[in-house]
Amino acid sequence: MREITEEHLADIAVGAAILGAGGGGDPRLGELLARAAIRSHGPVRVITVDELGTDDLVVPVSMIGAPTVANEKLPNLEALPAMLRLARRAVEGEGPRAGGVLHTMPIEVGGIAALLPIAMAAELGLALVDADAMGRAFPELQMTVPTLYGIDASPVVLADEHGNAVVVEAVSNAACERLARTVCVEMGSSALIALYAMDAAQTREATVTGSLAHAEALGRAVRLARERHEDPVLAVEQHLDARRLISGKLVDVARRTEGGFSRLEARVAGLGRDAGAELTLSSQNEHLVARRDGEVAATTPDLIMVLDAQTGTAVTTESMRYGMRVVVVASACDPRFRTEAGLALVGPRAFGYDLDYRPVELLHPATRADELSCSS
Amino acid sequence: MREITEEHLADIAVGAAILGAGGGGDPRLGELLARAAIRSHGPVRVITVDELGTDDLVVPVSMIGAPTVANEKLPNLEALPAMLRLARRAVEGEGPRAGGVLHTMPIEVGGIAALLPIAMAAELGLALVDADAMGRAFPELQMTVPTLYGIDASPVVLADEHGNAVVVEAVSNAACERLARTVCVEMGSSALIALYAMDAAQTREATVTGSLAHAEALGRAVRLARERHEDPVLAVEQHLDARRLISGKLVDVARRTEGGFSRLEARVAGLGRDAGAELTLSSQNEHLVARRDGEVAATTPDLIMVLDAQTGTAVTTESMRYGMRVVVVASACDPRFRTEAGLALVGPRAFGYDLDYRPVELLHPATRADELSCSS
Repeated sequence: MREITEEHLADIAVGAAILGAGGGGDPRLGELLARAAIRSHGPVRVITVDELGTDDLVVPVSMIGAPTVANEKLPNLEALPAMLRLARRAVEGEGPRAGGVLHTMPIEVGGIAALLPIAMAAELGLALVDADAMGRAFPELQMTVPTLYGIDASPVVLADEHGNAVVVEAVSNAACERLARTVCVEMGSSALIALYAMDAAQTREATVTGSLAHAEALGRAVRLARERHEDPVLAVEQHLDARRLISGKLVDVARRTEGGFSRLEARVAGLGRDAGAELTLSSQNEHLVARRDGEVAATTPDLIMVLDAQTGTAVTTESMRYGMRVVVVASACDPRFRTEAGLALVGPRAFGYDLDYRPVELLHPATRADELSCSS
Repeated sequence: MREITEEHLADIAVGAAILGAGGGGDPRLGELLARAAIRSHGPVRVITVDELGTDDLVVPVSMIGAPTVANEKLPNLEALPAMLRLARRAVEGEGPRAGGVLHTMPIEVGGIAALLPIAMAAELGLALVDADAMGRAFPELQMTVPTLYGIDASPVVLADEHGNAVVVEAVSNAACERLARTVCVEMGSSALIALYAMDAAQTREATVTGSLAHAEALGRAVRLARERHEDPVLAVEQHLDARRLISGKLVDVARRTEGGFSRLEARVAGLGRDAGAELTLSSQNEHLVARRDGEVAATTPDLIMVLDAQTGTAVTTESMRYGMRVVVVASACDPRFRTEAGLALVGPRAFGYDLDYRPVELLHPATRADELSCSS
């Protein structure tokens, strides 16, 4: 992928929404933003991490806040240039990173957050690096691969739709999260954010590369399956080597927005060959723990994804409604999140669940998607 | 006053505590900080606003938060250089102000806030401008004379004792307050703050000049009255041309710390010639409204000051206790706060009191301090 045009956006949006693992907000919103920006400013040039110049600077951008709010309160792209100016000024004040070309990048490949950097790149004429910091979405800003490499999220720049901006320079990425989340809530629980400015070497080493291409390929697989009247859910499972946790109906959804997060507990009652089984989902923007009939079926940092049973598209945490027919699947996260440090950062206990992490492919050795090809 | 040495600090602290109008925190804490800094780094050079060079930059520093907390959680002066570096970088990024000499200044002449800039000036080898932005203390950061001149509080830099820093660049000083207050609460309800960076012309026009000299002279008047076995409360009244509202005993103090403020409702039962009378005080860090027997006796923006009846020193909002013998006095604020714009910013209605402001000298034409010279 050398360029993102309007034609790529629908596939990227579908794929990124799935990889968002419940989080990231309504991907159509991000798609609209990106489409408007590309229509005004032309296609976005995409570069790989290997194409970065030594002195280049990559400033990822994203949104922070509760998707329930982001869906109501559109990001104001007019805040982008000021935000980027602040971010760059803050970063250049650090010294050695100055002088190179500025690029942007997604922090997470989920939902709006994957599409917003495309809009930003178009709007500001920047190239977009095909990588992200998670290979999925996570609810807190320190929950990234760069954190595992000791890379500072600071300076973190937040901007709201009124033109207010806040720069956080904290002593740890966890302290950044705490302060930025507070600011985000005061900004109305949804804000634009720039963070994890990285040089070329850091970007090469400490990101999940090829994320946008990955999202686009996933979205394309779903679209092609539908065009061919094949099962789009199966297409997702095959593309991600995902395990099916249940196929059924959403029967209970308890949701609240608090502290800048969308929190949710949901129950899926099995249908078809899953009749009689029940899956419970615990989520904080993203789905964190899935239990089937009381037994842990998948946990963070593996990706737990709720798909519309008919279309194969993502059902985000905030769009879950009673009665929806869904298939819940899970797939492996970036291997760096499976290390001791990775699990301390994004494993079940990092979210307050007293559970040991077990890789999804060990929890479900016998239920590979390709062996369970019935659609619900 | 050309220089502040250790010898000046006690008088400045006593005077600034009185001018704090209940706010500003324990002045002895500020005094100790300033004393330690001067002991380590030598006296602080004080300049008047007329001595500023055209290209000079004045970055005032202060504390933000609830004094109840500041008294427990000492400010970490080690955070000062990083905070000032951030403040200066943020300001210089704006362009035209760069190149001059950097000075500091108090934002408010009340309590710790008057002393902290002395410590900072000593610590960093800066000159201190003899001026402040209020001529008293106020609870919110937009409540300044510079605001009345359209001067931006942004960039506002906050720093906590762990080394975390946050820069707020907001579209209005009220938005700065909202965001900075939120950050302050997350930082533990007390933080160092740098704000209202001004050039020489702005500092000359939009500040209350001579504040430190004023505080020192007031403190000296109290000290000399005590040394001469005269009435120190009367000395304050005469020095400030203040009106006595009541002399009596604190009989009811309801205090709570919330949203980064210390809030208080207190009652003073009159003694001596005020026997039978009652004064109620409503405070938010500072004293905002005093009612005597139900009638408004003084309101913000005039200074309402609670003095220890024996020593003439300030009784701060958070140190008020049942049974204390106090004299409550009031004096005129800076005339710019008495304009329509000034009252919209800091008048009773700005704090939610549905009261018209009347200047304290009109409310009490017949009770001039010098005609009421009895001590309680």
